[in-house]
Formats: sequence, structure tokens, C-alpha cells
Amino acid sequence: MKLPKKVVIKEVGPRDGLQNEKVQIETSDKVSFINLLSDTGLSYIEVTSFVHPKWIPQLSDAFEVMQQIKRQQDVTYAALIPNMQGLERALQVGIDEANVFMSASESHNKNNINKTIVDTYPVLNEVVRHAKQQQLTVRGYVSTVLGCPYEGDVSPQQVLDVVHRLFDMGVDEISLGDTIGVGVPNEVERLLEVLLKSYKPHQFAMHFHDTRGTAIANIIKSMEMGITIFDSAVGGLGGCPYAKGASGNVATEDVLYTLNKMGITTNVSLERLLQAAQYIEHKINRTVNSKQMAILRGED
Amino acid sequence: MKLPKKVVIKEVGPRDGLQNEKVQIETSDKVSFINLLSDTGLSYIEVTSFVHPKWIPQLSDAFEVMQQIKRQQDVTYAALIPNMQGLERALQVGIDEANVFMSASESHNKNNINKTIVDTYPVLNEVVRHAKQQQLTVRGYVSTVLGCPYEGDVSPQQVLDVVHRLFDMGVDEISLGDTIGVGVPNEVERLLEVLLKSYKPHQFAMHFHDTRGTAIANIIKSMEMGITIFDSAVGGLGGCPYAKGASGNVATEDVLYTLNKMGITTNVSLERLLQAAQYIEHKINRTVNSKQMAILRGED
Repeated sequence: MKLPKKVVIKEVGPRDGLQNEKVQIETSDKVSFINLLSDTGLSYIEVTSFVHPKWIPQLSDAFEVMQQIKRQQDVTYAALIPNMQGLERALQVGIDEANVFMSASESHNKNNINKTIVDTYPVLNEVVRHAKQQQLTVRGYVSTVLGCPYEGDVSPQQVLDVVHRLFDMGVDEISLGDTIGVGVPNEVERLLEVLLKSYKPHQFAMHFHDTRGTAIANIIKSMEMGITIFDSAVGGLGGCPYAKGASGNVATEDVLYTLNKMGITTNVSLERLLQAAQYIEHKINRTVNSKQMAILRGED
Repeated sequence: MKLPKKVVIKEVGPRDGLQNEKVQIETSDKVSFINLLSDTGLSYIEVTSFVHPKWIPQLSDAFEVMQQIKRQQDVTYAALIPNMQGLERALQVGIDEANVFMSASESHNKNNINKTIVDTYPVLNEVVRHAKQQQLTVRGYVSTVLGCPYEGDVSPQQVLDVVHRLFDMGVDEISLGDTIGVGVPNEVERLLEVLLKSYKPHQFAMHFHDTRGTAIANIIKSMEMGITIFDSAVGGLGGCPYAKGASGNVATEDVLYTLNKMGITTNVSLERLLQAAQYIEHKINRTVNSKQMAILRGED
């Protein structure tokens, strides 16, 4: 099978993970958590979100977290940016990359950011333009690329339409999210076949949730299609607040086990990553959902 | 991607699952459980094991279970047979298929059946010969095909040696087990490439444990290599009593979700299978380990 030699893991636990945890984590604990992640060899951490605290109270300390973490030179510290107000706050404290987001399906977009898809473009466009003027790179998230909790199936063409618009705005990379974790490998293949007619594999990251146990299989099919960037969350933290049972980004440690065993380089230390998982598990006060952590606990 | 149109799921929960559960299940509950499974559309159920009760007390009621289940005409009811004494008991009550077993790695074989690999062959040979004389089909299990808890890596050549011997004995089908759930898709591919030089895909089943989250990915790679028979256990029951953290056959309901979504026919009703999972979950008195059951419980 055709596999990449090297893969980049983008850790989204502090943002996509913690924004969906019920327990409010202390700012200092988030900072310690991110500092632990910075010591694993990860080259990319999505730290927080500059969304209005009214929408995501769990991340209302975005500014303080960003300010207090110990930044390492070879790590990109990114944040989710919903609009110009968010970007301005983020620029005050300094971020390496601005991440904009929208959905491929109309009703999820409406539920998630309270706008139609068409009305979302100008908002994102403004953020992208200003971020670029500030020499930031910009990542675009497209949610529900393999299924929507309200509409069901989402076609590759729907995804392509949004992808076109985001790349036209100047977004550097697009992360394609199976937000509710319904996708299977032949659907991943079908989607990527369509997108890779217009774009190169390195322009995309894949963002899988393991809701139905298919995330690792989807990552492997994506690698076979040439994709080399994958989002994951330590401890399998997080999910989608608008879709029942949809929680759980694929766990970084489970991705790492698989990639290591397949002989694919990531430069991330599984041992150190598990330490970060143990740290956050203690803070969120529940058992995290990953296979490697279950083995560590000696579960039968 | 090249996929089969139809896949056969062989349900091993009542045997491989329950033999590793700590709770002793009542005989009548096992019978009800198997009867529920018979109503799902499954064409194959491994009911029990005629191993000496000293070794597996959980299945000491093998005879009674086999006797009391309601057999459906289009379902194969198989049982694990370690030796001639086991076969004789099984023949008294009547089984459709006799399943013999051994390991690809010397030390796991020694720990599991207290014999060297070489000393195991004559025992299995006698069982296979007698079973065939009684018009039974025979299935051979080869354990630890992708790794051994004592020896680590197991080479495709080691597996091939055992496979040769079993097919030479007259075994009809061989189930290749990743007993401790360490394998990844490129290892599956490497193994099958070697075996399929000498044999046809339909001669093999794959038996994955989801210990490290790679089972579904391994099933998909196996299908791409032409394999169309997969073992699984409802609720992800079971595991390997000699390897810490190795428990958990891949859950039948998770396999089923994936196959259904990929458009591959199994004839098994997911809805009815989940009813069987709920039934046994109640009896074993712990939460079963499958994604579909977590969704059913509405877990976040």
C-alpha cells in the first residue's frame, strides 16, 4: 500500500476538545496542559477559540491562555477566529495562525454560526484578508463533509463549493471535518477524488471523529490518497455540541500508535503525549476515551 | 477501492466473548442470548467450547447450551474443540462445525494449550480426521498472527508454516487471529500477500481484536485484499486471558455499521444485533465496549 513517510499531527484537544467538556478547567491548568503538549514533539497546537464567551464559556479565557503559555519556537500556536472582533483580540495577544470555520451543510452552518452559508463567506473573507495583512497563515475548517446531523448525506460537490470559496479567499490549508463521525473509507475516497481534481493533497488536512469507530480506517484511506496532515485530540477529547453521541475527536495517542506501528514518522513522543492525556484526564474528572489510555490503566 | 459486495460475519461472542468474562452466566441466559443472535440474520455462531471445564469454567455447560438452543436451519452452530474427548462430547449433542485452534508463536501456543507447536499438530490432526469422518466441516484458528504477547513480532512465514499444516490436515477454513490487537493495515497486507501466494482469499477469515483501535482499519485492508469472512463478537465481548489489556474482539455492531455504510451486504440486522448486545450487557453486569452501544446509551 502507498503510504507517506511522514505525517503531521495537528493537536486540537485544547480547543475542539475542551470547548465541549462540561467541566470548567482553570486557566492555569489549561496553560500547564498546553505546555505539556508543547513538550511532546507536536509541531502544531490549536490553543483556544476567540469566539464570544457567550457562545463558548469554556474558552472565555482565550486571551489569558494564549498570553500565559510557554511558546516553543518550532510549534505553531493557532486559534479559532469567528469574526473581526475575535481576530482583533487574538492579534493583541499574538497567534501564529488564524483558523476560520464553516460547514458544508446549510443547516449545520446555521445551527453552529447562526448564518446561512452565503452570509458566512463575507465574514470569513474579512478575517482572512486582515489575518493575511498581519502575515498570519490561515486555516479553514469545513465541517460535516461526510454527513450532517440535520440533513444526512453531504455530497462531495457541496464540499467542493465551500472549498473553492475558501481557497479563493486565500486560506492556506483546509481541514475537512467528519464532525459527527459517520464517514467510512470509501466515502473518504469519493470525497478526496473530487477535491484532488482541483487541488493538491498537501492543501488538505483530515479531521475525523471516532464516534462510530471508523476514524483510524478513514485516516489510513486518506493517507493512501496522499493526505499527510491529520487533526486529533489527546485523550479523544471533545466532539460536536449540536449532535448527540457525536463527541470524540479521534485520540492523538491512538493515531500515534497506528502511525508508529506502520513505520510513519511523526516526531511526536507517545510517552509524553500519554502524560498530557493523564494530566487532562485528572482535570476533566472523567475517564478519557482512547485505547492507549485504556491499556495504560490495565483495563480488561 | 476494490471491495467485496457481500461479507460473512462469524459471531464468536458466545464462545470467545463469554469465555473471558469474569461473571458466570446462567446456562439459560446463554441459551436466550444465542437464540437472540440466531434471529439477527447471522449465518454462523460459535456457540461454546468443549475444552475441559478445569481450563475454562465459564463454558463448563457447553453440552447443555448446545442441547438447549433453538437451532435455525440456515445458521451454522460451531464449537471449539481442543481434543478427541471434546469432540466426542460435541458429537453426542451435535454440532455443525468443529473448530480447532493453535498459535503461530511458540510461547503463546505453550501458554495457551500447554504444548509445543510440533506436539500440537498430531492432536489437531486426530480431531480433524474424526470430525471429517462425521461429515463435519472444520475451521482452524491460528492465533497471534500479527504479534505475540511473549515474543513480539510474528513473521508471515511463521504463520504460513502453521497454515500449511492445517490445510494439509484437511481444515476447510482458517481464521487468522490478531489475538492481542497489535496489528496495523500494512502488516495485514504483508501477511496476506504471503498467504495468498499459496491459497485463495475465501479460505481465510480474519479475526481482529480492537485493543488499539485498529480492527476496523484492518478489516477494510483485508477486504481490499479479497477477504470476505470476518469474526467479531457482539458488544466487543472477550479477549485473551493471557495478555494484559488484550481483551475485546472487535464488536459485531461496529463492523456492521461500517459494512452497511460502505454498501456491503451482510444480511445481519443491526437493530436486532443491538438487542442481543443489550441483553448480554445486562447479564455480564458491565458496560460493553462498542461505539454503537455508546451511541445507543446517548453518551457524550
